[in-house]
Amino acid sequence: MATIAFLGLGNMGGPMAKNLLAVGHLLTVFDLVEAACAAVAAEGASIAASAAEAAESADVIISMLPAGKHVAGTFLGEGGLLAKVSTDTLILDASTIDAATARQVGEAAAELGIDFMDTPVSGGVAAAAAGTLAFMCGGSAAAFDRAKPILEGMGSSEKIFHAGPAGAGQVAKAANNMLLAVHMIGTSEALAMGEAHGLDPAVLSEIMKASSGNNWSLQVYNPWPDVMEGVPSSNNYQPGFMVDLMVKDLGLACEVAESCGVDNQMGKKAMAAYSAHQAEGNGPRDFSSILEWVKAQ
Amino acid sequence: MATIAFLGLGNMGGPMAKNLLAVGHLLTVFDLVEAACAAVAAEGASIAASAAEAAESADVIISMLPAGKHVAGTFLGEGGLLAKVSTDTLILDASTIDAATARQVGEAAAELGIDFMDTPVSGGVAAAAAGTLAFMCGGSAAAFDRAKPILEGMGSSEKIFHAGPAGAGQVAKAANNMLLAVHMIGTSEALAMGEAHGLDPAVLSEIMKASSGNNWSLQVYNPWPDVMEGVPSSNNYQPGFMVDLMVKDLGLACEVAESCGVDNQMGKKAMAAYSAHQAEGNGPRDFSSILEWVKAQ
Repeated sequence: MATIAFLGLGNMGGPMAKNLLAVGHLLTVFDLVEAACAAVAAEGASIAASAAEAAESADVIISMLPAGKHVAGTFLGEGGLLAKVSTDTLILDASTIDAATARQVGEAAAELGIDFMDTPVSGGVAAAAAGTLAFMCGGSAAAFDRAKPILEGMGSSEKIFHAGPAGAGQVAKAANNMLLAVHMIGTSEALAMGEAHGLDPAVLSEIMKASSGNNWSLQVYNPWPDVMEGVPSSNNYQPGFMVDLMVKDLGLACEVAESCGVDNQMGKKAMAAYSAHQAEGNGPRDFSSILEWVKAQ
Repeated sequence: MATIAFLGLGNMGGPMAKNLLAVGHLLTVFDLVEAACAAVAAEGASIAASAAEAAESADVIISMLPAGKHVAGTFLGEGGLLAKVSTDTLILDASTIDAATARQVGEAAAELGIDFMDTPVSGGVAAAAAGTLAFMCGGSAAAFDRAKPILEGMGSSEKIFHAGPAGAGQVAKAANNMLLAVHMIGTSEALAMGEAHGLDPAVLSEIMKASSGNNWSLQVYNPWPDVMEGVPSSNNYQPGFMVDLMVKDLGLACEVAESCGVDNQMGKKAMAAYSAHQAEGNGPRDFSSILEWVKAQ
Protein backbone atom coordinates (compact mmCIF):
# COMPACT_ATOMS: atom_id res chain seq x y z
CA MET A 1 0.00 0.00 0.00
CA ALA A 2 1.25 3.48 -0.85
CA THR A 3 1.31 6.83 0.87
CA ILE A 4 -0.59 9.06 -1.54
CA ALA A 5 -1.09 12.81 -1.75
CA PHE A 6 -4.41 13.49 -3.51
CA LEU A 7 -4.91 17.02 -4.86
CA GLY A 8 -8.34 18.11 -6.07
CA LEU A 9 -11.47 16.55 -4.57
CA GLY A 10 -14.25 17.64 -6.91
CA ASN A 11 -17.02 15.51 -8.46
CA MET A 12 -14.42 13.14 -9.85
CA GLY A 13 -11.50 13.49 -7.40
CA GLY A 14 -13.66 12.94 -4.31
CA PRO A 15 -14.91 9.45 -5.17
CA MET A 16 -11.53 8.51 -6.67
CA ALA A 17 -9.82 9.35 -3.36
CA LYS A 18 -12.42 7.37 -1.41
CA ASN A 19 -11.80 4.31 -3.58
CA LEU A 20 -8.05 4.55 -2.90
CA LEU A 21 -8.79 4.65 0.84
CA ALA A 22 -11.10 1.66 0.48
CA VAL A 23 -8.33 -0.54 -0.92
CA GLY A 24 -6.00 0.41 1.93
CA HIS A 25 -3.78 3.27 0.73
CA LEU A 26 -2.81 6.03 3.15
CA LEU A 27 -4.07 9.37 1.84
CA THR A 28 -3.26 12.97 2.62
CA VAL A 29 -5.58 15.26 0.68
CA PHE A 30 -5.78 18.91 -0.31
CA ASP A 31 -8.56 20.96 -1.88
CA LEU A 32 -9.48 24.63 -1.60
CA VAL A 33 -13.00 23.58 -0.64
CA GLU A 34 -12.93 22.55 3.02
CA ALA A 35 -16.13 20.52 2.83
CA ALA A 36 -14.60 18.39 0.06
CA CYS A 37 -11.63 17.64 2.31
CA ALA A 38 -13.88 16.86 5.26
CA ALA A 39 -15.91 14.35 3.24
CA VAL A 40 -12.80 12.36 2.36
CA ALA A 41 -11.33 12.76 5.86
CA ALA A 42 -14.49 11.12 7.19
CA GLU A 43 -13.38 7.97 5.39
CA GLY A 44 -9.87 8.05 6.80
CA ALA A 45 -7.77 10.62 4.89
CA SER A 46 -5.58 13.23 6.55
CA ILE A 47 -6.12 16.84 5.51
CA ALA A 48 -3.15 19.01 4.53
CA ALA A 49 -3.07 22.81 4.52
CA SER A 50 -1.46 22.99 1.09
CA ALA A 51 -0.49 20.85 -1.88
CA ALA A 52 3.13 21.03 -0.75
CA GLU A 53 2.26 19.82 2.74
CA ALA A 54 0.22 16.95 1.30
CA ALA A 55 3.12 15.94 -0.93
CA GLU A 56 5.80 16.09 1.77
CA SER A 57 5.94 12.44 2.71
CA ALA A 58 4.07 10.92 -0.23
CA ASP A 59 5.32 8.08 -2.45
CA VAL A 60 2.67 8.98 -5.03
CA ILE A 61 1.00 12.28 -5.91
CA ILE A 62 -2.33 12.19 -7.77
CA SER A 63 -3.88 15.41 -9.06
CA MET A 64 -7.39 15.94 -10.42
CA LEU A 65 -7.62 19.59 -11.38
CA PRO A 66 -9.81 21.68 -13.70
CA ALA A 67 -7.39 22.96 -16.36
CA GLY A 68 -3.83 23.16 -17.60
CA LYS A 69 -3.06 26.35 -15.71
CA HIS A 70 -3.82 24.65 -12.39
CA VAL A 71 -1.61 21.68 -13.25
CA ALA A 72 1.24 23.92 -14.37
CA GLY A 73 0.86 26.07 -11.24
CA THR A 74 0.93 23.01 -8.99
CA PHE A 75 3.99 21.34 -10.47
CA LEU A 76 6.18 23.89 -12.30
CA GLY A 77 8.26 26.86 -11.21
CA GLU A 78 10.10 27.66 -7.98
CA GLY A 79 7.10 27.02 -5.78
CA GLY A 80 5.96 23.96 -7.72
CA LEU A 81 6.03 20.42 -6.43
CA LEU A 82 8.62 19.17 -8.93
CA ALA A 83 11.18 21.39 -7.21
CA LYS A 84 10.30 19.97 -3.80
CA VAL A 85 9.64 16.24 -4.04
CA SER A 86 12.19 13.44 -3.99
CA THR A 87 13.13 11.82 -7.28
CA ASP A 88 11.50 8.53 -6.38
CA THR A 89 8.05 10.15 -6.21
CA LEU A 90 5.50 8.96 -8.79
CA ILE A 91 3.21 11.72 -10.05
CA LEU A 92 -0.07 10.93 -11.82
CA ASP A 93 -2.09 13.82 -13.21
CA ALA A 94 -5.60 12.53 -13.91
CA SER A 95 -6.90 15.97 -14.94
CA THR A 96 -8.22 16.49 -18.47
CA ILE A 97 -6.03 19.32 -19.75
CA ASP A 98 -4.27 20.47 -22.90
CA ALA A 99 -1.67 18.07 -24.25
CA ALA A 100 0.95 20.82 -24.51
CA THR A 101 0.92 21.49 -20.75
CA ALA A 102 0.91 17.76 -19.98
CA ARG A 103 3.95 17.31 -22.21
CA GLN A 104 5.66 20.34 -20.64
CA VAL A 105 5.19 19.04 -17.10
CA GLY A 106 6.18 15.53 -18.17
CA GLU A 107 9.38 16.76 -19.74
CA ALA A 108 10.25 18.95 -16.77
CA ALA A 109 9.77 15.95 -14.48
CA ALA A 110 11.89 13.74 -16.73
CA GLU A 111 14.75 16.24 -16.58
CA LEU A 112 14.68 15.90 -12.79
CA GLY A 113 14.46 12.11 -12.96
CA ILE A 114 10.90 12.08 -11.59
CA ASP A 115 8.29 9.67 -13.01
CA PHE A 116 5.30 11.70 -14.22
CA MET A 117 2.34 10.49 -16.25
CA ASP A 118 -0.68 12.27 -17.66
CA THR A 119 -3.51 9.84 -16.86
CA PRO A 120 -6.84 11.43 -17.89
CA VAL A 121 -9.90 9.35 -17.19
CA SER A 122 -13.01 8.30 -19.07
CA GLY A 123 -16.31 7.15 -17.63
CA GLY A 124 -17.62 10.12 -15.68
CA VAL A 125 -18.89 10.46 -12.13
CA ALA A 126 -20.65 7.09 -12.11
CA ALA A 127 -17.47 5.21 -13.03
CA ALA A 128 -15.44 7.30 -10.57
CA ALA A 129 -17.78 6.22 -7.77
CA ALA A 130 -17.85 2.60 -8.90
CA GLY A 131 -14.08 2.41 -9.33
CA THR A 132 -14.44 1.44 -12.98
CA LEU A 133 -12.78 4.41 -14.68
CA ALA A 134 -10.68 4.07 -17.83
CA PHE A 135 -7.21 5.66 -17.70
CA MET A 136 -5.24 6.81 -20.76
CA CYS A 137 -1.62 7.20 -19.71
CA GLY A 138 1.25 9.19 -21.24
CA GLY A 139 4.85 8.74 -20.10
CA SER A 140 7.57 6.10 -19.90
CA ALA A 141 6.98 2.36 -19.79
CA ALA A 142 8.70 2.25 -16.38
CA ALA A 143 6.34 4.91 -15.01
CA PHE A 144 3.37 2.98 -16.42
CA ASP A 145 4.48 -0.18 -14.61
CA ARG A 146 4.57 1.77 -11.34
CA ALA A 147 1.28 3.58 -12.04
CA LYS A 148 -0.91 0.64 -13.02
CA PRO A 149 -1.36 -0.95 -9.56
CA ILE A 150 -2.27 2.45 -8.13
CA LEU A 151 -4.74 3.24 -10.93
CA GLU A 152 -6.37 -0.17 -10.45
CA GLY A 153 -7.65 1.18 -7.15
CA MET A 154 -9.81 3.61 -9.11
CA GLY A 155 -10.39 1.95 -12.47
CA SER A 156 -10.95 -1.27 -14.39
CA SER A 157 -7.73 -3.17 -14.99
CA GLU A 158 -8.56 -3.88 -18.66
CA LYS A 159 -9.20 -0.17 -19.28
CA ILE A 160 -5.84 1.15 -18.09
CA PHE A 161 -3.89 1.94 -21.26
CA HIS A 162 -0.35 3.09 -21.93
CA ALA A 163 -1.11 5.47 -24.80
CA GLY A 164 2.47 6.58 -25.49
CA PRO A 165 5.01 9.20 -24.36
CA ALA A 166 4.34 12.29 -22.22
CA GLY A 167 1.14 14.01 -23.29
CA ALA A 168 -0.16 10.92 -25.11
CA GLY A 169 -2.84 10.31 -22.49
CA GLN A 170 -4.31 13.75 -23.14
CA VAL A 171 -4.06 13.28 -26.92
CA ALA A 172 -5.88 9.94 -26.69
CA LYS A 173 -8.64 11.36 -24.52
CA ALA A 174 -9.10 14.40 -26.76
CA ALA A 175 -9.21 12.21 -29.88
CA ASN A 176 -11.68 9.81 -28.27
CA ASN A 177 -14.05 12.49 -27.03
CA MET A 178 -13.94 14.29 -30.36
CA LEU A 179 -14.93 11.03 -32.06
CA LEU A 180 -17.71 10.61 -29.50
CA ALA A 181 -19.07 14.09 -30.31
CA VAL A 182 -18.90 13.37 -34.04
CA HIS A 183 -20.82 10.10 -33.87
CA MET A 184 -23.33 11.48 -31.33
CA ILE A 185 -24.24 14.29 -33.75
CA GLY A 186 -24.18 11.93 -36.75
CA THR A 187 -26.45 9.52 -34.88
CA SER A 188 -28.79 12.37 -34.00
CA GLU A 189 -28.97 13.44 -37.66
CA ALA A 190 -29.66 9.88 -38.82
CA LEU A 191 -32.44 9.37 -36.25
CA ALA A 192 -33.98 12.79 -36.98
CA MET A 193 -34.07 12.04 -40.73
CA GLY A 194 -35.65 8.67 -40.14
CA GLU A 195 -38.28 9.87 -37.70
CA ALA A 196 -39.28 12.71 -40.02
CA HIS A 197 -39.91 10.07 -42.70
CA GLY A 198 -42.12 7.96 -40.46
CA LEU A 199 -39.60 5.46 -39.10
CA ASP A 200 -39.71 4.50 -35.43
CA PRO A 201 -36.42 5.77 -33.88
CA ALA A 202 -36.19 2.57 -31.82
CA VAL A 203 -36.47 0.39 -34.93
CA LEU A 204 -34.03 2.53 -36.90
CA SER A 205 -31.61 2.34 -33.96
CA GLU A 206 -31.80 -1.47 -33.99
CA ILE A 207 -31.17 -1.53 -37.75
CA MET A 208 -28.12 0.74 -37.51
CA LYS A 209 -26.74 -1.13 -34.49
CA ALA A 210 -26.81 -4.30 -36.57
CA SER A 211 -25.23 -2.50 -39.54
CA SER A 212 -22.21 -0.39 -40.40
CA GLY A 213 -23.56 2.72 -38.67
CA ASN A 214 -23.06 1.04 -35.30
CA ASN A 215 -21.37 3.15 -32.62
CA TRP A 216 -21.21 3.73 -28.87
CA SER A 217 -23.97 6.37 -28.94
CA LEU A 218 -26.39 3.81 -30.42
CA GLN A 219 -25.15 0.99 -28.22
CA VAL A 220 -25.31 2.54 -24.77
CA TYR A 221 -26.33 6.21 -24.94
CA ASN A 222 -29.14 6.63 -27.46
CA PRO A 223 -29.96 10.36 -27.76
CA TRP A 224 -33.63 9.82 -28.69
CA PRO A 225 -35.91 10.02 -25.62
CA ASP A 226 -37.36 6.72 -24.38
CA VAL A 227 -35.59 4.49 -26.89
CA MET A 228 -33.29 3.25 -24.11
CA GLU A 229 -33.86 3.03 -20.36
CA GLY A 230 -31.55 4.62 -17.81
CA VAL A 231 -29.85 7.09 -20.14
CA PRO A 232 -30.00 10.91 -19.92
CA SER A 233 -32.23 11.23 -23.02
CA SER A 234 -34.93 9.31 -21.15
CA ASN A 235 -34.53 11.60 -18.12
CA ASN A 236 -34.93 15.04 -19.69
CA TYR A 237 -31.20 15.12 -20.51
CA GLN A 238 -30.06 15.35 -16.89
CA PRO A 239 -26.31 14.65 -17.01
CA GLY A 240 -24.50 12.36 -17.44
CA PHE A 241 -21.80 14.28 -19.23
CA MET A 242 -22.52 17.97 -19.57
CA VAL A 243 -22.49 20.00 -22.79
CA ASP A 244 -20.09 22.37 -20.98
CA LEU A 245 -17.57 19.54 -20.55
CA MET A 246 -17.96 18.38 -24.15
CA VAL A 247 -17.23 21.92 -25.34
CA LYS A 248 -14.12 21.95 -23.10
CA ASP A 249 -12.95 18.61 -24.51
CA LEU A 250 -13.64 19.62 -28.12
CA GLY A 251 -11.59 22.75 -27.52
CA LEU A 252 -8.71 20.58 -26.30
CA ALA A 253 -9.13 18.30 -29.34
CA CYS A 254 -9.02 21.25 -31.72
CA GLU A 255 -5.80 22.43 -30.01
CA VAL A 256 -4.33 18.94 -30.42
CA ALA A 257 -5.23 18.95 -34.13
CA GLU A 258 -4.04 22.51 -34.73
CA SER A 259 -0.69 21.88 -33.05
CA CYS A 260 0.12 18.99 -35.39
CA GLY A 261 -1.37 20.45 -38.56
CA VAL A 262 -4.27 17.99 -38.92
CA ASP A 263 -7.38 19.67 -40.33
CA ASN A 264 -10.04 17.94 -38.20
CA GLN A 265 -13.05 19.13 -40.20
CA MET A 266 -15.56 16.83 -38.53
CA GLY A 267 -14.18 17.74 -35.12
CA LYS A 268 -14.46 21.45 -35.90
CA LYS A 269 -18.03 20.97 -37.08
CA ALA A 270 -18.81 19.17 -33.82
CA MET A 271 -17.20 22.03 -31.88
CA ALA A 272 -19.36 24.56 -33.74
CA ALA A 273 -22.52 22.55 -33.07
CA TYR A 274 -21.85 22.03 -29.36
CA SER A 275 -20.78 25.66 -28.89
CA ALA A 276 -24.02 26.85 -30.50
CA HIS A 277 -26.04 24.46 -28.34
CA GLN A 278 -24.19 25.71 -25.23
CA ALA A 279 -24.81 29.33 -26.20
CA GLU A 280 -28.54 28.61 -26.20
CA GLY A 281 -28.38 27.82 -22.48
CA ASN A 282 -27.81 24.06 -22.61
CA GLY A 283 -24.38 23.96 -20.96
CA PRO A 284 -25.52 22.07 -17.83
CA ARG A 285 -27.59 19.50 -19.77
CA ASP A 286 -26.34 16.14 -20.97
CA PHE A 287 -24.38 16.21 -24.23
CA SER A 288 -26.85 13.85 -25.93
CA SER A 289 -29.31 16.78 -25.92
CA ILE A 290 -27.54 17.81 -29.13
CA LEU A 291 -30.39 15.85 -30.75
CA GLU A 292 -32.69 18.77 -29.92
CA TRP A 293 -30.27 21.19 -31.58
CA VAL A 294 -30.09 19.00 -34.69
CA LYS A 295 -33.89 18.90 -34.93
CA ALA A 296 -34.13 22.68 -34.49
CA GLN A 297 -31.77 23.60 -37.35
CA MET B 1 -40.21 -22.89 -53.11
CA ALA B 2 -41.17 -19.88 -55.24
CA THR B 3 -41.03 -19.06 -58.92
CA ILE B 4 -38.91 -15.91 -58.99
CA ALA B 5 -38.13 -13.36 -61.69
CA PHE B 6 -34.72 -11.82 -60.93
CA LEU B 7 -33.94 -8.55 -62.74
CA GLY B 8 -30.41 -7.17 -62.66
CA LEU B 9 -27.43 -9.53 -62.32
CA GLY B 10 -24.53 -7.23 -61.52
CA ASN B 11 -21.87 -7.60 -58.80
CA MET B 12 -24.60 -7.89 -56.20
CA GLY B 13 -27.54 -9.34 -58.14
CA GLY B 14 -25.52 -12.19 -59.64
CA PRO B 15 -24.51 -13.85 -56.37
CA MET B 16 -27.91 -13.10 -54.82
CA ALA B 17 -29.63 -14.97 -57.67
CA LYS B 18 -27.24 -17.89 -57.31
CA ASN B 19 -28.03 -18.19 -53.62
CA LEU B 20 -31.76 -18.30 -54.37
CA LEU B 21 -31.13 -21.12 -56.84
CA ALA B 22 -29.04 -22.93 -54.24
CA VAL B 23 -31.92 -23.09 -51.76
CA GLY B 24 -34.25 -24.49 -54.43
CA HIS B 25 -36.20 -21.60 -55.90
CA LEU B 26 -37.04 -21.59 -59.63
CA LEU B 27 -35.50 -18.53 -61.28
CA THR B 28 -36.06 -16.74 -64.55
CA VAL B 29 -33.53 -13.97 -64.96
CA PHE B 30 -33.04 -10.88 -67.09
CA ASP B 31 -30.09 -8.55 -67.52
CA LEU B 32 -28.92 -6.45 -70.48
CA VAL B 33 -25.50 -8.11 -70.15
CA GLU B 34 -25.75 -11.55 -71.73
CA ALA B 35 -22.70 -12.93 -69.92
CA ALA B 36 -24.29 -12.08 -66.60
CA CYS B 37 -27.39 -14.08 -67.58
CA ALA B 38 -25.28 -16.98 -68.81
CA ALA B 39 -23.38 -17.19 -65.51
CA VAL B 40 -26.60 -17.60 -63.54
CA ALA B 41 -28.13 -19.91 -66.17
CA ALA B 42 -25.14 -22.19 -65.66
CA GLU B 43 -26.44 -22.77 -62.14
CA GLY B 44 -29.96 -23.55 -63.25
CA ALA B 45 -31.80 -20.32 -64.05
CA SER B 46 -33.85 -19.75 -67.20
CA ILE B 47 -33.00 -16.65 -69.24
CA ALA B 48 -35.78 -14.32 -70.39
CA ALA B 49 -35.59 -11.86 -73.29
CA SER B 50 -37.08 -9.02 -71.25
CA ALA B 51 -38.13 -8.08 -67.75
CA ALA B 52 -41.76 -8.58 -68.76
CA GLU B 53 -41.07 -12.07 -70.06
CA ALA B 54 -39.21 -12.97 -66.86
CA ALA B 55 -42.13 -11.71 -64.77
CA GLU B 56 -44.85 -13.50 -66.73
CA SER B 57 -45.27 -16.55 -64.56
CA ALA B 58 -43.46 -15.41 -61.44
CA ASP B 59 -44.84 -15.46 -57.89
CA VAL B 60 -42.09 -13.09 -56.80
CA ILE B 61 -40.14 -10.39 -58.67
CA ILE B 62 -36.78 -9.27 -57.28
CA SER B 63 -34.96 -6.32 -58.84
CA MET B 64 -31.39 -5.18 -58.23
CA LEU B 65 -30.87 -2.10 -60.40
CA PRO B 66 -28.48 0.86 -60.40
CA ALA B 67 -30.72 3.86 -59.73
CA GLY B 68 -34.25 5.18 -59.23
CA LYS B 69 -34.83 5.83 -62.92
CA HIS B 70 -34.27 2.16 -63.74
CA VAL B 71 -36.66 1.05 -61.01
CA ALA B 72 -39.32 3.55 -62.09
CA GLY B 73 -38.88 2.52 -65.73
CA THR B 74 -39.21 -1.17 -64.86
CA PHE B 75 -42.35 -0.92 -62.75
CA LEU B 76 -44.30 2.26 -63.60
CA GLY B 77 -46.20 3.48 -66.65
CA GLU B 78 -48.04 1.68 -69.40
CA GLY B 79 -45.17 -0.62 -70.22
CA GLY B 80 -44.21 -1.18 -66.61
CA LEU B 81 -44.56 -4.44 -64.74
CA LEU B 82 -47.15 -3.17 -62.27
CA ALA B 83 -49.60 -2.90 -65.17
CA LYS B 84 -48.90 -6.47 -66.25
CA VAL B 85 -48.52 -8.72 -63.24
CA SER B 86 -51.26 -10.37 -61.23
CA THR B 87 -52.24 -8.83 -57.90
CA ASP B 88 -50.86 -11.75 -55.92
CA THR B 89 -47.31 -11.08 -57.13
CA LEU B 90 -44.80 -10.04 -54.46
CA ILE B 91 -42.27 -7.45 -55.66
CA LEU B 92 -39.02 -6.84 -53.79
CA ASP B 93 -36.75 -4.05 -55.01
CA ALA B 94 -33.33 -4.59 -53.44
CA SER B 95 -31.76 -1.68 -55.35
CA THR B 96 -30.32 1.27 -53.42
CA ILE B 97 -32.27 4.21 -54.82
CA ASP B 98 -33.84 7.46 -53.73
CA ALA B 99 -36.57 7.11 -51.13
CA ALA B 100 -39.00 9.26 -53.15
CA THR B 101 -39.01 6.83 -56.09
CA ALA B 102 -39.28 3.84 -53.74
CA ARG B 103 -42.30 5.45 -52.09
CA GLN B 104 -43.83 6.32 -55.48
CA VAL B 105 -43.54 2.75 -56.75
CA GLY B 106 -44.75 1.37 -53.42
CA GLU B 107 -47.83 3.58 -53.47
CA ALA B 108 -48.60 2.77 -57.11
CA ALA B 109 -48.40 -0.94 -56.27
CA ALA B 110 -50.61 -0.50 -53.20
CA GLU B 111 -53.30 1.17 -55.32
CA LEU B 112 -53.36 -1.92 -57.52
CA GLY B 113 -53.39 -4.26 -54.51
CA ILE B 114 -49.88 -5.55 -55.23
CA ASP B 115 -47.42 -6.18 -52.38
CA PHE B 116 -44.25 -4.17 -53.04
CA MET B 117 -41.34 -3.59 -50.68
CA ASP B 118 -38.16 -1.56 -51.00
CA THR B 119 -35.54 -3.92 -49.58
CA PRO B 120 -32.08 -2.34 -49.99
CA VAL B 121 -29.19 -4.41 -48.74
CA SER B 122 -26.11 -3.89 -46.60
CA GLY B 123 -22.95 -5.95 -46.53
CA GLY B 124 -21.47 -5.61 -49.99
CA VAL B 125 -20.28 -8.18 -52.51
CA ALA B 126 -18.79 -10.50 -49.88
CA ALA B 127 -22.06 -10.78 -47.97
CA ALA B 128 -23.99 -11.18 -51.23
CA ALA B 129 -21.81 -14.16 -52.14
CA ALA B 130 -21.98 -15.64 -48.63
CA GLY B 131 -25.74 -15.18 -48.37
CA THR B 132 -25.36 -13.05 -45.26
CA LEU B 133 -26.76 -9.72 -46.48
CA ALA B 134 -28.78 -7.39 -44.27
CA PHE B 135 -32.13 -6.23 -45.70
CA MET B 136 -33.93 -3.03 -44.66
CA CYS B 137 -37.54 -3.33 -45.79
CA GLY B 138 -40.21 -0.70 -46.41
CA GLY B 139 -43.87 -1.60 -46.95
CA SER B 140 -46.78 -3.27 -45.18
CA ALA B 141 -46.46 -5.81 -42.37
CA ALA B 142 -48.27 -8.35 -44.55
CA ALA B 143 -45.77 -7.85 -47.38
CA PHE B 144 -42.90 -8.23 -44.90
CA ASP B 145 -44.29 -11.56 -43.69
CA ARG B 146 -44.31 -12.78 -47.29
CA ALA B 147 -40.90 -11.31 -48.08
CA LYS B 148 -38.90 -12.59 -45.14
CA PRO B 149 -38.66 -16.29 -46.13
CA ILE B 150 -37.54 -15.26 -49.63
CA LEU B 151 -34.95 -12.78 -48.32
CA GLU B 152 -33.60 -15.45 -45.97
CA GLY B 153 -32.31 -17.20 -49.08
CA MET B 154 -29.91 -14.27 -49.59
CA GLY B 155 -29.37 -12.82 -46.12
CA SER B 156 -29.00 -13.47 -42.42
CA SER B 157 -32.33 -14.02 -40.70
CA GLU B 158 -31.46 -11.73 -37.77
CA LYS B 159 -30.53 -8.92 -40.17
CA ILE B 160 -33.82 -8.75 -42.07
CA PHE B 161 -35.61 -5.69 -40.69
CA HIS B 162 -39.03 -4.19 -41.26
CA ALA B 163 -38.03 -0.54 -41.20
CA GLY B 164 -41.50 0.95 -41.72
CA PRO B 165 -43.87 1.95 -44.54
CA ALA B 166 -43.06 2.26 -48.27
CA GLY B 167 -39.70 3.98 -48.75
CA ALA B 168 -38.57 3.30 -45.17
CA GLY B 169 -36.03 0.71 -46.30
CA GLN B 170 -34.30 3.32 -48.46
CA VAL B 171 -34.46 5.92 -45.66
CA ALA B 172 -32.90 3.46 -43.20
CA LYS B 173 -30.12 2.53 -45.59
CA ALA B 174 -29.36 6.17 -46.45
CA ALA B 175 -29.31 7.13 -42.75
CA ASN B 176 -27.07 4.18 -41.87
CA ASN B 177 -24.56 4.79 -44.64
CA MET B 178 -24.45 8.51 -43.86
CA LEU B 179 -23.63 7.62 -40.25
CA LEU B 180 -20.96 5.20 -41.49
CA ALA B 181 -19.35 7.96 -43.56
CA VAL B 182 -19.45 10.35 -40.60
CA HIS B 183 -17.76 7.97 -38.17
CA MET B 184 -15.25 6.76 -40.77
CA ILE B 185 -14.07 10.35 -41.32
CA GLY B 186 -14.19 11.11 -37.59
CA THR B 187 -12.17 7.97 -36.89
CA SER B 188 -9.65 8.98 -39.55
CA GLU B 189 -9.28 12.43 -37.98
CA ALA B 190 -8.80 10.97 -34.50
CA LEU B 191 -6.15 8.50 -35.69
CA ALA B 192 -4.35 11.14 -37.77
CA MET B 193 -4.19 13.50 -34.78
CA GLY B 194 -2.89 10.76 -32.54
CA GLU B 195 -0.26 9.50 -34.95
CA ALA B 196 1.03 13.02 -35.59
CA HIS B 197 1.55 13.31 -31.82
CA GLY B 198 3.53 10.09 -31.60
CA LEU B 199 0.81 7.63 -30.65
CA ASP B 200 0.70 4.20 -32.29
CA PRO B 201 -2.53 4.09 -34.35
CA ALA B 202 -3.05 0.47 -33.27
CA VAL B 203 -2.81 1.41 -29.58
CA LEU B 204 -5.04 4.46 -30.01
CA SER B 205 -7.55 2.26 -31.85
CA GLU B 206 -7.64 -0.18 -28.93
CA ILE B 207 -8.14 2.69 -26.47
CA MET B 208 -11.03 4.20 -28.45
CA LYS B 209 -12.65 0.79 -29.03
CA ALA B 210 -12.72 0.33 -25.25
CA SER B 211 -14.07 3.88 -24.76
CA SER B 212 -16.90 6.08 -25.90
CA GLY B 213 -15.39 6.67 -29.35
CA ASN B 214 -16.11 3.07 -30.28
CA ASN B 215 -17.75 2.51 -33.66
CA TRP B 216 -18.00 0.04 -36.55
CA SER B 217 -15.05 1.60 -38.42
CA LEU B 218 -12.77 0.90 -35.45
CA GLN B 219 -14.29 -2.50 -34.75
CA VAL B 220 -14.14 -4.14 -38.16
CA TYR B 221 -12.86 -1.71 -40.81
CA ASN B 222 -9.93 0.28 -39.40
CA PRO B 223 -8.83 2.85 -42.02
CA TRP B 224 -5.18 2.94 -40.88
CA PRO B 225 -3.00 0.57 -42.96
CA ASP B 226 -1.82 -2.59 -41.20
CA VAL B 227 -3.68 -2.00 -37.93
CA MET B 228 -6.13 -4.75 -38.86
CA GLU B 229 -5.72 -7.80 -41.10
CA GLY B 230 -8.00 -8.54 -44.03
CA VAL B 231 -9.43 -5.05 -44.47
CA PRO B 232 -9.00 -2.77 -47.51
CA SER B 233 -6.67 -0.36 -45.67
CA SER B 234 -4.18 -3.22 -45.32
CA ASN B 235 -4.50 -4.01 -49.05
CA ASN B 236 -3.81 -0.62 -50.64
CA TYR B 237 -7.49 0.31 -50.29
CA GLN B 238 -8.73 -2.22 -52.85
CA PRO B 239 -12.52 -2.30 -52.38
CA GLY B 240 -14.46 -3.30 -50.38
CA PHE B 241 -16.96 -0.53 -50.79
CA MET B 242 -15.96 2.06 -53.36
CA VAL B 243 -15.74 5.81 -52.82
CA ASP B 244 -18.04 6.12 -55.88
CA LEU B 245 -20.75 4.17 -54.09
CA MET B 246 -20.33 6.13 -50.86
CA VAL B 247 -20.76 9.37 -52.81
CA LYS B 248 -23.93 7.91 -54.37
CA ASP B 249 -25.29 6.90 -50.96
CA LEU B 250 -24.42 10.25 -49.38
CA GLY B 251 -26.26 11.96 -52.24
CA LEU B 252 -29.32 9.83 -51.46
CA ALA B 253 -28.98 10.64 -47.74
CA CYS B 254 -28.81 14.36 -48.45
CA GLU B 255 -31.99 14.03 -50.56
CA VAL B 256 -33.69 12.22 -47.69
CA ALA B 257 -32.68 14.98 -45.26
CA GLU B 258 -33.59 17.81 -47.64
CA SER B 259 -37.02 16.36 -48.36
CA CYS B 260 -37.97 16.34 -44.66
CA GLY B 261 -36.28 19.60 -43.66
CA VAL B 262 -33.54 18.08 -41.46
CA ASP B 263 -30.27 20.02 -41.71
CA ASN B 264 -27.81 17.09 -41.70
CA GLN B 265 -24.68 19.18 -41.20
CA MET B 266 -22.37 16.23 -40.44
CA GLY B 267 -23.81 14.33 -43.39
CA LYS B 268 -23.24 17.29 -45.71
CA LYS B 269 -19.67 17.63 -44.46
CA ALA B 270 -19.13 13.94 -45.17
CA MET B 271 -20.60 14.42 -48.66
CA ALA B 272 -18.19 17.32 -49.31
CA ALA B 273 -15.20 15.28 -48.11
CA TYR B 274 -16.04 12.16 -50.14
CA SER B 275 -16.85 14.23 -53.24
CA ALA B 276 -13.49 15.99 -53.00
CA HIS B 277 -11.72 12.66 -52.50
CA GLN B 278 -13.59 11.23 -55.52
CA ALA B 279 -12.67 14.26 -57.64
CA GLU B 280 -9.00 13.52 -56.96
CA GLY B 281 -9.34 10.21 -58.78
CA ASN B 282 -10.16 7.93 -55.85
CA GLY B 283 -13.64 6.84 -56.95
CA PRO B 284 -12.74 3.17 -57.51
CA ARG B 285 -10.80 2.83 -54.23
CA ASP B 286 -12.24 1.67 -50.93
CA PHE B 287 -14.09 4.34 -48.95
CA SER B 288 -11.74 3.93 -45.96
CA SER B 289 -9.08 5.63 -48.11
CA ILE B 290 -10.68 8.88 -46.88
CA LEU B 291 -7.91 8.63 -44.25
CA GLU B 292 -5.45 9.72 -46.94
CA TRP B 293 -7.63 12.71 -47.78
CA VAL B 294 -7.88 13.68 -44.11
CA LYS B 295 -4.09 13.53 -43.75
CA ALA B 296 -3.59 15.62 -46.91
CA GLN B 297 -5.78 18.57 -45.83
